[in-house]
Amino acid sequence: MKVKSSFGPQYKEFEIGDVIFLAKEKPLKLTSGAEIKNFPLAYQTYGTLNADKSNAILICHALTGDQYAASKHPITGKDGWWSFLIGPNKTIDTEKFFVISSNIIGGCMGSFGPKEIDPETNQPYGLSFPAITISDMVKAQNLLIEHFGIQKLHAVIGGSTGGMQALSWSILYPQKVKLIIPMATSYRHSPQNVAFHEVGRQAIMADPNWCEGKYFLEKKCPEKGLAVARMTAHITYLSEVALQKKFGRELQNKNDFSFNFDPDFQVESYLHHQGYSFVQRFDANSYLYITKAVDYFDLEKDFSGKLSNAFNNLSPEIKFCLISFSDDWLFPPSEAKKLTHALAACGVNVSSITIESTAGHDSFLIESNALKNTIKGFLNNQ
Amino acid sequence: MKVKSSFGPQYKEFEIGDVIFLAKEKPLKLTSGAEIKNFPLAYQTYGTLNADKSNAILICHALTGDQYAASKHPITGKDGWWSFLIGPNKTIDTEKFFVISSNIIGGCMGSFGPKEIDPETNQPYGLSFPAITISDMVKAQNLLIEHFGIQKLHAVIGGSTGGMQALSWSILYPQKVKLIIPMATSYRHSPQNVAFHEVGRQAIMADPNWCEGKYFLEKKCPEKGLAVARMTAHITYLSEVALQKKFGRELQNKNDFSFNFDPDFQVESYLHHQGYSFVQRFDANSYLYITKAVDYFDLEKDFSGKLSNAFNNLSPEIKFCLISFSDDWLFPPSEAKKLTHALAACGVNVSSITIESTAGHDSFLIESNALKNTIKGFLNNQ
Repeated sequence: MKVKSSFGPQYKEFEIGDVIFLAKEKPLKLTSGAEIKNFPLAYQTYGTLNADKSNAILICHALTGDQYAASKHPITGKDGWWSFLIGPNKTIDTEKFFVISSNIIGGCMGSFGPKEIDPETNQPYGLSFPAITISDMVKAQNLLIEHFGIQKLHAVIGGSTGGMQALSWSILYPQKVKLIIPMATSYRHSPQNVAFHEVGRQAIMADPNWCEGKYFLEKKCPEKGLAVARMTAHITYLSEVALQKKFGRELQNKNDFSFNFDPDFQVESYLHHQGYSFVQRFDANSYLYITKAVDYFDLEKDFSGKLSNAFNNLSPEIKFCLISFSDDWLFPPSEAKKLTHALAACGVNVSSITIESTAGHDSFLIESNALKNTIKGFLNNQ
Repeated sequence: MKVKSSFGPQYKEFEIGDVIFLAKEKPLKLTSGAEIKNFPLAYQTYGTLNADKSNAILICHALTGDQYAASKHPITGKDGWWSFLIGPNKTIDTEKFFVISSNIIGGCMGSFGPKEIDPETNQPYGLSFPAITISDMVKAQNLLIEHFGIQKLHAVIGGSTGGMQALSWSILYPQKVKLIIPMATSYRHSPQNVAFHEVGRQAIMADPNWCEGKYFLEKKCPEKGLAVARMTAHITYLSEVALQKKFGRELQNKNDFSFNFDPDFQVESYLHHQGYSFVQRFDANSYLYITKAVDYFDLEKDFSGKLSNAFNNLSPEIKFCLISFSDDWLFPPSEAKKLTHALAACGVNVSSITIESTAGHDSFLIESNALKNTIKGFLNNQ
């Protein structure tokens, strides 16, 4: 089923692509206790599912990512965020694998999210949308996998928030997946990361155009607040070295300081661009809900304060390949190391690799031989 | 002269303390080219100036600091931010030294700043206030020192933005100072730091109560925007380790997640408190002007791209004690190291010490024996 959706400051209609309605008979119970049924999940697939349905790979997207991992984005027109990884004869070879990439619930690209229409009121959910967690996102993905009749995924792969989903797959459905590749992620969201998220949420909710979450009804958009949230987050996605290398203290189209409050430095113009292009493709309420879901993610807390308890019930066949990036300060290699130790303590087969990087957290979105070779080797040598 | 001033969301009147009007005859030319005359500088002094006026120490405050280094703050009622360092028989001993602490120009505690009344219009300057730089702040301080008839300061001491002022003192007035103690600072503001400042400015300017800088006239205050700016900045003042130690992922007065957008974690409540207490004592336009001054600070650029050129004309008697803190990621020890090398390359007498810390950038505001002993030793063994 292909549907149209409308979105953003201009509320333009665009083609979402494939959407399926799930939990039609039995509602899905969320972590908060709320139940949802007959909810939409938007997805893209690449390649062909083989006869015994053993070649499926699930791709889990990051915080503000979407299902267009290897296809053009319907709003920006840009190539998919993992186009360099996914495709015929690429690292995740769609001649061989059937790749499924779904928009998380809480998102804004056609899946059940706060901008969707509540059939009971015929208005967007806004803040009447239920709170969601990473586990809830994974449970919705599982229903999609069931729809395809897949008994066991060859692999679940994801970076950052997508990595949290990959980890949760191994815990919630240990019999349903062979390989787990979490990258640039952690077993819990650190206090510093929670703090950055909260600043972003406060910026959105401080924008009077947010209208207590009802901006759709007012035909407004909390653009400024959402842009500030994105700018803050974007700094955390890069490293100091990356910013220094990319921009240094170069001025933007000028020879000297402006001595006013226009952007003087290239790094400022870049941030503005990041902030204001983001609001064209992302929903402010989705940002609130998804950041909260990520902040709640804490495998230690979920398992009585002991991380290794999380992995006690894993199937002996499951294998992990944990990837971290040397200059990622949002999810530093030290957290991947702790995860590796916890997995190893449970006797789980785990490979752990830290890739030397200079692009910070965003390194998982940037083409590199190290990243491609690591994934390719792990996927194909099993 | 003691004057009253009014300020903040409630526009309460309070006693500023000592204020002097400077550049009465000859205007002060700013870096931007603008000239200012008969402008106020608010200050506090501790101890007594000796007969030959050789025992004066100038304290330079940080971004959002003020002149109340060792006296109660007139709005918050809290002790001075360096009360643990300055006083009778303390590290900076006011039985021995005459300590001068002035509010920087651009500030909001009585010195020439955007909230002061423009005598030409009888309204607050707002954005008609001229752009200022770190050099301009130092030139204004120099006029205050001249007022006291001091030929040579025993020392100039400052942390963070105050450290930039201390460095600038050595460059602008090398004959007028014996000892320079810059701490938790750098020779230039890094691209990452510029980016964080720009996010803060955008948050303020996005607040409709900012009124294009004319909020005083409207009796409004861009509280939400300024609070978001402060929250963002505050994260950078601490370290990941500090946040983990102080708060971890502890919840605030609850046993489980709220599943709404109230603060769940202690770290969130703490940030809210920091943000909203800040707006009680600081002016939003001052924040814009001072952050811009800090972003402009770049001794490399000022000296043809070669840092050591900045220190070529230093008096041979001048001595530096550079202090950095091990877990300060805003002004990391690596930048102090680069400064040390540049000073040493010019044959300048420089001691450089990195103090092991767990409180991040804010370590220079936190009492520790290492900090006290370093300063005491340097001040008294000359």
